[in-house]
Amino acid sequence: MITSPTNARIKSARKLQRRRNRDKEQQILIEGVRLVEDAWRAGVRPVQVFYDAERVADNVRASTLLGEMRAADVPCAPCTSAVFAVLADTVTPQGIAAVTPIPRHPPPAAVSLALVLDGIRDPGNAGTLLRTAEAAGADWALFAPGTVDAYNDKTLRAAMGAHFRLPLSQFDTWSALRAQLPASAAVYLADAAGDRAYTEVDWRKPAVLIVGGEAEGARAPARAVATPIMIPMHGGTESLNAAVAGSVILMEAARQRGGAR
Amino acid sequence: MITSPTNARIKSARKLQRRRNRDKEQQILIEGVRLVEDAWRAGVRPVQVFYDAERVADNVRASTLLGEMRAADVPCAPCTSAVFAVLADTVTPQGIAAVTPIPRHPPPAAVSLALVLDGIRDPGNAGTLLRTAEAAGADWALFAPGTVDAYNDKTLRAAMGAHFRLPLSQFDTWSALRAQLPASAAVYLADAAGDRAYTEVDWRKPAVLIVGGEAEGARAPARAVATPIMIPMHGGTESLNAAVAGSVILMEAARQRGGAR
Repeated sequence: MITSPTNARIKSARKLQRRRNRDKEQQILIEGVRLVEDAWRAGVRPVQVFYDAERVADNVRASTLLGEMRAADVPCAPCTSAVFAVLADTVTPQGIAAVTPIPRHPPPAAVSLALVLDGIRDPGNAGTLLRTAEAAGADWALFAPGTVDAYNDKTLRAAMGAHFRLPLSQFDTWSALRAQLPASAAVYLADAAGDRAYTEVDWRKPAVLIVGGEAEGARAPARAVATPIMIPMHGGTESLNAAVAGSVILMEAARQRGGAR
Repeated sequence: MITSPTNARIKSARKLQRRRNRDKEQQILIEGVRLVEDAWRAGVRPVQVFYDAERVADNVRASTLLGEMRAADVPCAPCTSAVFAVLADTVTPQGIAAVTPIPRHPPPAAVSLALVLDGIRDPGNAGTLLRTAEAAGADWALFAPGTVDAYNDKTLRAAMGAHFRLPLSQFDTWSALRAQLPASAAVYLADAAGDRAYTEVDWRKPAVLIVGGEAEGARAPARAVATPIMIPMHGGTESLNAAVAGSVILMEAARQRGGAR
């Protein structure tokens, strides 16, 4: 039982609350039964699991998950509630957290539908876009420079496990990102000022969708490579929320492709 | 110049930060150049405007708006920055706030597309849904009991002025809400467990869309009156964010109706 917040494993896990340390260690700290379960089901093996012994005792789902991970020799350390609280950034922690490697899925050999987040600052919007991208059948998410860290805890929570199932790449420069865009795919940019409606695009062909930031939209490098497309709007609305606009377009692509399930 | 936070007008405006007082006074406190401008352009006449004299001086948009309201004899009171700060709930207030009557638009005589929010707790999600509903050409938003207050400050901000342009009704009971639903409209419920895809619905006919809460979905009264419809999903996604799911369906309705602008 870990009883001290200055325990070495706790201290090194807490460091992962900062992006700099996540980038250096190539590890993330995830919290909550749902997220740890998503990682585990997707084949991501935690380096270390922590749990609040008292809280987990009466949570069947958490106990089952812990049992499975223990059986696979994943180190699982019980903590006091006070120690666990320093790891958790939610108000009502569920009592389980894990340090895992940053999930690495190679980009698809042939891109069918990719999403580029360009300057999305709100971590909830970024996570929501990842969640919808997976649901729409996208096969790659690319984070342009100036976008929130993909492994921000709020982004992880809003994405509901998409991080562990969808290939995801972060780029330091737009030229590096551009070099990775498949030559065969059409590139579109969600832009309220565009001339062409998103419903007029043939989404059955390989495509890349760029969604720009909440306030200022996509930046010049994105505009240079993409065809702007807009969502026709009624009333006095000037634009949609960035996560909504991206989601509506991704789901139109899925609709044209014939849906799923 | 108001220099004291205990000024009577400041105190009565601050009271509107609580729902109980908004309901009693039938007034709201809105903040930010954009929101006050949206209200004014929509014909909502503020009862009282407050502004941070120092901050507004170098903001052309705010100064123009203040000039227009003053010319129409709207009471506009300059405040010190310290006094203004007690009215503002944003971290970087824009220096203008207004007390306005709760906007009242009568429900449409014939409903074409109505949105019911049933147990949406997150004020940002509620506001985002209002923003998309307006953009999709919806003509009425109905708040079922158990839903966040429509005039919560975060809901107001996320809706980007939709409150001032879209008829909106809040209900204390589901039976009161149900009595208002047009008999001629089909009623659908966004439900990840539904059998019918949202794209298979004929949205050119009058329709009501119910969007349930983030965690537990819509409640029994909604389920009793509605046909569940789902958004087909790929991958391991179990559901979409509530605001996203509602927005995707609303925009499919707009698409089938031929878009706008």
